[in-house]
Amino acid sequence: MKVCKFGGTSVASADQIRKVVDIVTSDSDRKIVVVSAPGKRFSDDSKVTDLLIRLGERALANEDAESDLLEVVDRYRSIAENLGLDSDIVHQIEQDLRNRLSRDKEDILLFMDTMKAAGEDNNAKLIAAYLQFIGVEAKYVCPREGGLLVNDRPERVRALPEGDERLAKLRDEPGIIVFPGFFGYTEDGTLRTFNRGGSDITGSIIAAAVKADLYENFTDVDSVFAANPTVIENPVAIEKMTYREMRELAYAGFSVFHDEALIPAFRKSIPVSIKNTNNPEAPGTLIVKERDYNEQQVIGIAADSGFTAIYVDKFLMNLEIGFGRRLLQIFEEEGISYEHTPSGIDNLSIIIRSRFMTKEMEERIVERIHKELEPDAVIVEHDYSMIVLVGEGMQYTTGLAARAATAIARSGSNIEMINQGSSEVSLVFGVKVKDETKSLKELYNEFFVKSYVQS
Amino acid sequence: MKVCKFGGTSVASADQIRKVVDIVTSDSDRKIVVVSAPGKRFSDDSKVTDLLIRLGERALANEDAESDLLEVVDRYRSIAENLGLDSDIVHQIEQDLRNRLSRDKEDILLFMDTMKAAGEDNNAKLIAAYLQFIGVEAKYVCPREGGLLVNDRPERVRALPEGDERLAKLRDEPGIIVFPGFFGYTEDGTLRTFNRGGSDITGSIIAAAVKADLYENFTDVDSVFAANPTVIENPVAIEKMTYREMRELAYAGFSVFHDEALIPAFRKSIPVSIKNTNNPEAPGTLIVKERDYNEQQVIGIAADSGFTAIYVDKFLMNLEIGFGRRLLQIFEEEGISYEHTPSGIDNLSIIIRSRFMTKEMEERIVERIHKELEPDAVIVEHDYSMIVLVGEGMQYTTGLAARAATAIARSGSNIEMINQGSSEVSLVFGVKVKDETKSLKELYNEFFVKSYVQS
Repeated sequence: MKVCKFGGTSVASADQIRKVVDIVTSDSDRKIVVVSAPGKRFSDDSKVTDLLIRLGERALANEDAESDLLEVVDRYRSIAENLGLDSDIVHQIEQDLRNRLSRDKEDILLFMDTMKAAGEDNNAKLIAAYLQFIGVEAKYVCPREGGLLVNDRPERVRALPEGDERLAKLRDEPGIIVFPGFFGYTEDGTLRTFNRGGSDITGSIIAAAVKADLYENFTDVDSVFAANPTVIENPVAIEKMTYREMRELAYAGFSVFHDEALIPAFRKSIPVSIKNTNNPEAPGTLIVKERDYNEQQVIGIAADSGFTAIYVDKFLMNLEIGFGRRLLQIFEEEGISYEHTPSGIDNLSIIIRSRFMTKEMEERIVERIHKELEPDAVIVEHDYSMIVLVGEGMQYTTGLAARAATAIARSGSNIEMINQGSSEVSLVFGVKVKDETKSLKELYNEFFVKSYVQS
Repeated sequence: MKVCKFGGTSVASADQIRKVVDIVTSDSDRKIVVVSAPGKRFSDDSKVTDLLIRLGERALANEDAESDLLEVVDRYRSIAENLGLDSDIVHQIEQDLRNRLSRDKEDILLFMDTMKAAGEDNNAKLIAAYLQFIGVEAKYVCPREGGLLVNDRPERVRALPEGDERLAKLRDEPGIIVFPGFFGYTEDGTLRTFNRGGSDITGSIIAAAVKADLYENFTDVDSVFAANPTVIENPVAIEKMTYREMRELAYAGFSVFHDEALIPAFRKSIPVSIKNTNNPEAPGTLIVKERDYNEQQVIGIAADSGFTAIYVDKFLMNLEIGFGRRLLQIFEEEGISYEHTPSGIDNLSIIIRSRFMTKEMEERIVERIHKELEPDAVIVEHDYSMIVLVGEGMQYTTGLAARAATAIARSGSNIEMINQGSSEVSLVFGVKVKDETKSLKELYNEFFVKSYVQS
C-alpha cells in the first residue's frame, strides 16, 4: 500500500488534478492521497495559501475582505468548472470560507491557522468530489476524524503518536482516501498547522502510521539532483539515497523535501519516493534506510551561503573545563542555534547562520564573551559559505578528503574551515562566499564527471 | 637583561653546575638565574624531587626515614664537594631538611609541598654559594622575600600579579640573583608548589615581572624539532616560532616547555629562548610574538595517541537549540575537558583524552546521554591519534589542507576526523592509532623534505 502526497503545483489547476487522478488510479496500491492547497499555475501566479493569509489579515484588520474572498472562491470555481463538476462543491467551499471568516478572532494565531488550513481542506474535498464524479470510490477524510492528533505548542506543532492507532484504520476504509495536508487537531479539537510545506509532514505521518510500503512525494521535478541545477548544468540525478544523506543535503540548500517530514518515515523505515507529477514515468529518487555504499561514495554536493563565524581565542583555553559549554550557553541564551564549532587548542569558532543573528545580538554576544570568558580575542567574520559533500560511503574511503580538498585548491579557493567527524556521512568545507560557486563546480567535476581530466 | 632558567639535568651534578656558571658569567645580561632541583645524572638515576617525595611519604607514615634523608643530603654533598665548597653548605641543607621533616603534618598537602620545594630551594642556595666561592657577586633570594606571590588554591596554584612589583625590584639588586623554581607563597606566607616542571613557570613569571629582554630556558636539547625525533630521523630544528605555535605543538606531545609557563611571557611579549646547557653555542629555538609566515607555513607536526571519540547521532539534532551545550555539560559535570567537537548536521562527536575517562565514567556518560538527550545512537571509539600541523602561515595558504590530506592518503591511512577552524594556527587530523606513525612520516616528507618526490 502506498501513500501519495501531491504538492501545490501538482494540484494547482484542473489539468494538473487530472494528472494526479491518472497517477492515483493507475496503481491500485495508491490508497491514501494527501493534497496541498492549489499552488502557482505560472510563475507570477499566487498560491491559494498566500491569498488566504491576505484574506485573514484583512478580516483581522476589519477591512472589507469580500473581493479577497471571491478571489479564493474563483480559484476553486475555475478548477471545479474545468473538471466538469457542478457548482455545489463551489458553494460548499464559499460557505466554508465565510464560516471560517466569521469565527472568533480573539486568538489571532488560531484564526489565521483556521484560514490557512482552508486551502488544503477544500482542495481535498474538491478532489474527492472529482474522483466520485468520474466513478472512483473515494472520500474526503478530515484530520480530526482521521486521527491526525498534534500537541498544543502552536510555536512547534508536532504529531502525537496517540493518533497513530486511528490513522492506521485508514488502511481498512473502502476506496481512496483524500486527506488534506498541513494541519491536525489537538486533543481538545483545536486546529493547528505545521510549518509551511507541512503537507509533506502529513503524508509522512500517515505513511508511518499505516505502515505503507512506500510514501510517494509527487512534486514538479524528476528527481533530486547531485548538485544545484542553477549552478551545475544538467547535474546527474540521484536514484537512491539514505534518509541521512537526504537530511544532510536538505540542510545546505536542497529544498525538495521538508526537513521534518523525513522523521516519521525514517523512524518506521518507510521508503520515500520523490516523483514528478508531470513526468510520472521518470524513475525519481528513492530515499531508503540503507544503500550499497560501494557504488557511489559521494551522492551529492550541497552549498549554502549566509554563514558567520565567531572566532574566540584564549591562551590555555583548553585547560579550562567548561569554556566551550559556557560559550555555547551564551548563544543558547540568545536563542541562536549553531552549526559547527571547529576548534584549535586555544581557540574555538562558532559557525552560525547569519540570519539568526541581528547586528544588535552580535554586539551583545561579543560583549558577553569578553566579559564572561575573558578571551584574548573575539573576531566575527561574515560571508562564509558551507559546502557539504554527502555520502554514507565516505567514511570508508581513504583519500576522499584529499581529493575534495585538492579540488577546492585547484579552483583557487582557500579553505577556511573543514569539519569531518567520526562515522559521519558528510564532509563540510567552509569557504568565503566569493569562492562558493567555483569550489562547487570543481568538486562536482571531481566526483561526478567521469571523463574529467585534472588540469 | 635576561632571566635564565636551568632544568633538572642542567643542575644535576658539579660538572653540570660548572657549565651553568660558565653560561651565566659569560654574558653580563644574565642577571636572574632560576634553578630546578638536581635531576638525573644518568638514565637510571633518581631525581632529587622524587627522593624528597619518598622521604615525605615515609615521614607521614611514621616510618624510619633517616636513610632516605641521608640519600638526599648525599646528593647535595657530592655536588658541594666536587665544586670544592666546604661542608657548611651541606650542614645547612641537612638542617633545613630536618626542620622541614619536623614540621606539623596535619595538613598533608602543605607538608608534602614543603618537602618537595626543598629540592629547588637548597639547590639555589648551593649554587649561590658556589658563585660567591668563585668570586662572583651573587645571592640566593627566597620566593617569599622575592615576591613570588601565589593564590591559595592548592589544586591550581597560580601567580598573583600583586607580587609583580616586588619581583620587578630584583632588577635593581646588585650581582646575580639565584632564585629557586617551582614554588611561591600565599599572601599569608603558606608555601605552595606549581605542577611538576614548575620551574619553567617561576622563570616566566620573573621574566615578565622584571620585563626581561629575553627569557632563556636551558635544558638538554639543542632546540625544538619540527617533529618527534624518536619517529623522524634527524628532524629539522625550529629556529623561530610564535607562542601560539609552541602552544599547539606542546599540546600534542612536544614536552620541551611547560604549558602554563608560556602564559606570563606571552602576556608581556617576552621572547623565550630554548637552549642546551651542554651545547650553549647552538642557536636554539626562539619563541616570539610574530614571525615572517612566508618563510615557512608549517613550522612543525605533532602527533599524540590516546584519544577517544564519543559519537552522538540524532535526527534533526541541529534544530534543537542547546543540544550541543547540554552534551558538553554532561562532560563538564563529570570533570572531563574535551579537545574537539566535530559535527555533521545531525551528529556530533566529542573527542577527549582517553586517560580522563575511566570505564565507569564512560558507562555513566553514555547512560546520561541516552537518558537526557534521547539520541538515535551513541558510539564510543577508542584508540584515536591526533596529528596536528602547526603554523601561523597556514591560514593564508591555498591548498595546504589538500597537500596534508593527500600525504595522509598516500600513507594508506584513513582520515577519521579533520578539524580546521577560521583564523587558526593548526590543522588537526584524527587517525586510528595504527596509522599515526606512517601518517606523521608522510606529512613530514611532504612539508620538510625538499627533495622529496611523491611516489
